[in-house]
Amino acid sequence: MTVRTPDPDWNPDDEPVVRPPVNPGWLSDLELAEVRGRLPLLYVEAVPVRVDGLGQVTEVGMLLRANAVGEMTRTIVSGRVMYGETVRDALFRHIEKDLGPMAFPLLPASPVPFMVAEYFPLPGISPFTDERQHAVSLAFVVPVTGTCEPRQDALEVTWMTPAEAVTDTVRAELEGGRGTLVKQALASVGALP
Amino acid sequence: MTVRTPDPDWNPDDEPVVRPPVNPGWLSDLELAEVRGRLPLLYVEAVPVRVDGLGQVTEVGMLLRANAVGEMTRTIVSGRVMYGETVRDALFRHIEKDLGPMAFPLLPASPVPFMVAEYFPLPGISPFTDERQHAVSLAFVVPVTGTCEPRQDALEVTWMTPAEAVTDTVRAELEGGRGTLVKQALASVGALP
Amino acid sequence: MTVRTPDPDWNPDDEPVVRPPVNPGWLSDLELAEVRGRLPLLYVEAVPVRVDGLGQVTEVGMLLRANAVGEMTRTIVSGRVMYGETVRDALFRHIEKDLGPMAFPLLPASPVPFMVAEYFPLPGISPFTDERQHAVSLAFVVPVTGTCEPRQDALEVTWMTPAEAVTDTVRAELEGGRGTLVKQALASVGALP
Amino acid sequence: MTVRTPDPDWNPDDEPVVRPPVNPGWLSDLELAEVRGRLPLLYVEAVPVRVDGLGQVTEVGMLLRANAVGEMTRTIVSGRVMYGETVRDALFRHIEKDLGPMAFPLLPASPVPFMVAEYFPLPGISPFTDERQHAVSLAFVVPVTGTCEPRQDALEVTWMTPAEAVTDTVRAELEGGRGTLVKQALASVGALP
Repeated sequence: MTVRTPDPDWNPDDEPVVRPPVNPGWLSDLELAEVRGRLPLLYVEAVPVRVDGLGQVTEVGMLLRANAVGEMTRTIVSGRVMYGETVRDALFRHIEKDLGPMAFPLLPASPVPFMVAEYFPLPGISPFTDERQHAVSLAFVVPVTGTCEPRQDALEVTWMTPAEAVTDTVRAELEGGRGTLVKQALASVGALP
Repeated sequence: MTVRTPDPDWNPDDEPVVRPPVNPGWLSDLELAEVRGRLPLLYVEAVPVRVDGLGQVTEVGMLLRANAVGEMTRTIVSGRVMYGETVRDALFRHIEKDLGPMAFPLLPASPVPFMVAEYFPLPGISPFTDERQHAVSLAFVVPVTGTCEPRQDALEVTWMTPAEAVTDTVRAELEGGRGTLVKQALASVGALP
Repeated sequence: MTVRTPDPDWNPDDEPVVRPPVNPGWLSDLELAEVRGRLPLLYVEAVPVRVDGLGQVTEVGMLLRANAVGEMTRTIVSGRVMYGETVRDALFRHIEKDLGPMAFPLLPASPVPFMVAEYFPLPGISPFTDERQHAVSLAFVVPVTGTCEPRQDALEVTWMTPAEAVTDTVRAELEGGRGTLVKQALASVGALP
Repeated sequence: MTVRTPDPDWNPDDEPVVRPPVNPGWLSDLELAEVRGRLPLLYVEAVPVRVDGLGQVTEVGMLLRANAVGEMTRTIVSGRVMYGETVRDALFRHIEKDLGPMAFPLLPASPVPFMVAEYFPLPGISPFTDERQHAVSLAFVVPVTGTCEPRQDALEVTWMTPAEAVTDTVRAELEGGRGTLVKQALASVGALP
């Protein structure tokens, strides 16, 4: 199974909301490939949720996607933080990229993630793997209030109850060990079954 | 200066959203006075904030109120958790009580407070005092998206920038040491100047 | 199965480290029974853990105990916060009560719990139940560095790996829904399998 | 005033505890200079503290150092996460580098930082600046139990009370806006005066 952190960095739709102040810092494919073996890359991830009127999580959103070899896999919102971009801007940009412009996410007031997920090329160092790179991801639970229309390579967003989201079946479909991240997300909001 | 935690428990408008399952547990004034010297009481508090489109805190809301001796003091949303009531229900109920039904608060997905504030009758044990009782308060930062119309004994809600909210003047007007709590709230969302 | 929150409040060994400043606030059995139907009671709970040199959780400690009807049940460190006692003092006192004076716990620098667990007499309101009362518990993960010798009604402390601690067998033995709390504890430290 | 994030990456004493699995990923000065204008770099930072027997913070440790132009500045433990290195390993390595091998730090069980500090070359985007680069730092409060002997370019470790640590004088001496980070650290442990 291919485990990859999505990184559609050079899509023209995908530019940061706030332009980097000095140097755009966009990397070519070749440069990124080069840097990936040298440095940990900084990512943001979001577990999209629906909440009720009291803020309690009722559903978890998962992206369905065909991977490089045509298998269907599930994932969450995920992407790289660019040079000059704030974590908050990156989070907003990737949510819009993956859930569409009508998702109306409620970004958290606190910049502290519910978890720091460390992805290594080789398994066993942490629960998370990414064969392409060493990535460190700041992961947030983000309530969305609008309509999600996945863009780019995602096929659809599936909404599940917390109980459905942590089944072994779903867990096996989540790439790179993100089944554990979804459980940690639900635990952080008191919704782990 | 009178330092008191607001506790307008017997106002008929003030009943919990969800009725306690077995025993209402309402206490008479006399019973509450009795219990106050015997047990720590559980409170919830909310620092109301305005956020921008990226979730970043731009303003802090403070309640202005005349206290028992006619002095103007500031406070935040605060009140007791009733028997049989969830923390989340209590938080919603007290926000509605203090900010009105059109405040449209966004309660946090996580039930973990940014701070546990411990109020003791005598100063020096913690930064917080409440001459009436030993109260332990779960304090949350709560974005509000609607219009705030203070009810009951509060006169108005004043919106301040984070920088204004932590000045010595405002701090001195906040009862029971809540100036420290407001600073902790702003620190937790990365907005402490 | 009996689900109860331990509350051996009147054991003479069990007095708070810091004496309440004004009024001891000790309740007789009768008074406590009375108050239990009227107010939520404030508890602290600790999930004892062993950590390696880098702070990573390697083992979880569980108390084994015979309950009122002679069944063996598992639980974690748990107890009431007294009038005039700080949360930190209560946490230390109950850890010493349940793990003995040589446990050498490392209390967290932050007073913010990893979870606020709400115990209701009737199931369905939250994952946690306590047939005796409505209790709200501030739950902490606490590394212990010494030797644990359970006192009072606990028979022994069993150390388990995180994977063992979340099996269905152990979960079924944990009273009042604390299997969920142990999972939340492990999730909060990135050790949920 | 020079504001820089310390980065003594090529000191031979300074190698990560766990060797990167595939590719060491060490960068030459030239390569690092190149990458610094293209990508946000991942850092860890630690605010060293002394705690009492109940875990409460009593003192904050600050490093005193002469900067490139010979001015005395203060800072906290800070350094880059290497390719293949866990956040926890990086934190341990930089604490040992800055406080010496006898500091005996108690690394937190939770991998979630108290704050994500974003350093930009230009001021105004966040409270933190680093003229050399865009760095994103995971900041932790770390109790130390041993003796601190600063190595490398630091001259000494000064222990201050929380009240001393947040004075305007100390704040002005802290480089890159870290006075705000120290305040956030103290707020997160309930010790902000």
